[in-house]
Amino acid sequence: MIGLSSYAGVMESLMNSAEEQQPSSPLAKALSKKQEPSKHPKPKGVGGFVLVHAGAGYHSESKAKEYKHVCKRACQRAVDQLKAGALAVEAVAAALVELEDSPFTNAGMGSNLNLSGEIECDASIMDGKSLHYGAVGAISGIKNPVLIANRLMTEAQKGKLSAGRIPPCFLVGRGAHDWAVSHGIPPCPSEKMATKFSLSAYKRNKRKMELAEKMDTGENPKKKRRQSSENENGSGCLDTVGAVVVDLEGNVAAAVSSGGLAMKHPGRVGQAAHYGCGCWAENACNMNPYSTAVSTSGCGEHLIRTMLARECSTAMQSDDAHQALLDAMQNKFISSPFLASEDRVLGGVIVLRCCRCVETQPSPNIQGILVEFLWSHTTESMCVGYMSAQDGKAKTHISRLPPGTVPGQSLAIEGGVCRLMSVVE
Amino acid sequence: MIGLSSYAGVMESLMNSAEEQQPSSPLAKALSKKQEPSKHPKPKGVGGFVLVHAGAGYHSESKAKEYKHVCKRACQRAVDQLKAGALAVEAVAAALVELEDSPFTNAGMGSNLNLSGEIECDASIMDGKSLHYGAVGAISGIKNPVLIANRLMTEAQKGKLSAGRIPPCFLVGRGAHDWAVSHGIPPCPSEKMATKFSLSAYKRNKRKMELAEKMDTGENPKKKRRQSSENENGSGCLDTVGAVVVDLEGNVAAAVSSGGLAMKHPGRVGQAAHYGCGCWAENACNMNPYSTAVSTSGCGEHLIRTMLARECSTAMQSDDAHQALLDAMQNKFISSPFLASEDRVLGGVIVLRCCRCVETQPSPNIQGILVEFLWSHTTESMCVGYMSAQDGKAKTHISRLPPGTVPGQSLAIEGGVCRLMSVVE
Repeated sequence: MIGLSSYAGVMESLMNSAEEQQPSSPLAKALSKKQEPSKHPKPKGVGGFVLVHAGAGYHSESKAKEYKHVCKRACQRAVDQLKAGALAVEAVAAALVELEDSPFTNAGMGSNLNLSGEIECDASIMDGKSLHYGAVGAISGIKNPVLIANRLMTEAQKGKLSAGRIPPCFLVGRGAHDWAVSHGIPPCPSEKMATKFSLSAYKRNKRKMELAEKMDTGENPKKKRRQSSENENGSGCLDTVGAVVVDLEGNVAAAVSSGGLAMKHPGRVGQAAHYGCGCWAENACNMNPYSTAVSTSGCGEHLIRTMLARECSTAMQSDDAHQALLDAMQNKFISSPFLASEDRVLGGVIVLRCCRCVETQPSPNIQGILVEFLWSHTTESMCVGYMSAQDGKAKTHISRLPPGTVPGQSLAIEGGVCRLMSVVE
Repeated sequence: MIGLSSYAGVMESLMNSAEEQQPSSPLAKALSKKQEPSKHPKPKGVGGFVLVHAGAGYHSESKAKEYKHVCKRACQRAVDQLKAGALAVEAVAAALVELEDSPFTNAGMGSNLNLSGEIECDASIMDGKSLHYGAVGAISGIKNPVLIANRLMTEAQKGKLSAGRIPPCFLVGRGAHDWAVSHGIPPCPSEKMATKFSLSAYKRNKRKMELAEKMDTGENPKKKRRQSSENENGSGCLDTVGAVVVDLEGNVAAAVSSGGLAMKHPGRVGQAAHYGCGCWAENACNMNPYSTAVSTSGCGEHLIRTMLARECSTAMQSDDAHQALLDAMQNKFISSPFLASEDRVLGGVIVLRCCRCVETQPSPNIQGILVEFLWSHTTESMCVGYMSAQDGKAKTHISRLPPGTVPGQSLAIEGGVCRLMSVVE
């Protein structure tokens, strides 16, 4: 059973906000003529669009305000960068820093503690223009893991190291920490990264684990495993963060950051540091008419084994964005043969895709980028925010599964359309 | 320019060895009628086929004998398992243990040392039957990293941990080491894993690096990077190991293990621990007529960014296996838009694909699996071995780029066909 929230509703509301100067038909396909990606002059001016998420999981009403607030700030940070002429990849990193810095999200500050009571973070970033990628896994003592991922990516673009050594795109653990510090990223004492909330959650989880293990004593190990899987789904602890951005040149970028599952084994690396699983970004090219960017959230192992970010990106090359994402979430995630043994498949994605278009009215000198943006999740809720550089402020929203649907077996999907405008000479 | 070695030559030679009792036309497609994967009775008897590699890189004539010898032993280990009734995934792990134990390969014992003079290994395994996957990255002090990857995979198949926690599929560093030891995999002192050869290579590389850095003094950093990339390609140090197996039930499995690039930064994780990049295995299903298994070797960052194992697996669903692999290596690797800035793209793959077939002669009770196996590489050489359970001993081969071709820009491709037979009731 699939629960579908409104798609068109959110779409229209954004049309009014992002396109105040160019009101037009709400049907994306009727808006304008698609243009070949390589045959356009450089746009004049700066701008772009950002979509962020503060995780697919469970967002209580009591904390909804905080989650929305951090999404709003993250959008603003990205838009500030875009307005200052930054590329999509710089704007997406700026949004992630804001999301990591919030003590409410499970990324950077306030991340979940692992089984040993330590914070170990994963993060990655991908630049759709260069197709370069950087990732960091199971790293402790750095406030903003996304900055290491970003730095790995930019360092790799400089070419080989001395004696022909190939620069790394993925570093983990202590080695990643030392690399970061030697590249000017300041260390942060681990105790400063834990919050009152993350510490009390750790104590609560520890007690719960001990109780569960005590209750299972005397039963055979196989039964023990199955039983506990039915009692809990842990979906309250999946609030990874991420963002996708398009700039006015049409470049896309995506990033993701996570403290990982609560009570995970030390050294566990989740989807946020897995190529193709946590984020994906690809500019349009000869083969692909659309630029696409994706960031995921949810149960890392489910997102890894389905390679969900890349699957959604590939799916978004077909005509109908909404249908494509719906099919991908249904066939490549909920019903994926890779997760055949899972009773609940928990995750969410934010997606944007865009293509250039030439306006026929009011003037042929106006060049635009048509941005379609969507989110979808099988978790109880997902918190998102979005903003174009033309907007005064970000919109935020907590998407929830329709009443009566089952998390991990149903999905919600929503989205909108926005047109970015620039004058060409 | 593409250099092509003979495909048919090797194919015919194997036809004679693996099918002594059933000589037939050398054209794979004409051999027999393909059968729907799900509509076959259980075969009687045990058997299967294994293809291993001791890396794509540069194999000197002086060490050729050793490389071939370890490939032979690895094939024998897998076949011993298959003959004892093991599934493909158990046989592939057994082959990997043998390859890791050789002090000549860059995996397990005798792995390359990193910048700090330590050994940190990556490994992963995938079971085409369950589609489960396990991986370990940047791990020190364990002789056989593939055994941890395998154990992570089997543990994950048992379902959730206490209090609903999801078991990890990928562990790194110290946490991975501790997990392994707590699951009964014995630790091995690091000094026992280094060999005379790996220690002297480390000293040589260290001197080379110091010299390169000294020579570059006074030049601007950008120029420094570019220069050194032209002088060296480091292809002598890429000898990751791997294997692909099909058992008589038609299940496929793949695995890969690596000590990583020499003088890599501590914490660097290469393709051998990257999902979709180091190995891939998928049994035939409704969507895919062929079972496929792939294992890669070469420059980790190139194999990661092109996700080469999964790309090759996907490609192998088209009709002509040889043409499909040739196209994949050319379009998804050498000319990949993901590696547009690289002048030399270094890597290699071993691939097998199979489908069930019913023999019309000599008896309809004979059921067979048609196995097509191939290897392809852009490095100077690649050492492979292969054996079916019907063979008396493994065949080994060092494939080399044709004379006059440029490593990283040209490729070699070879392979063969083998038919596995079993009696059905």
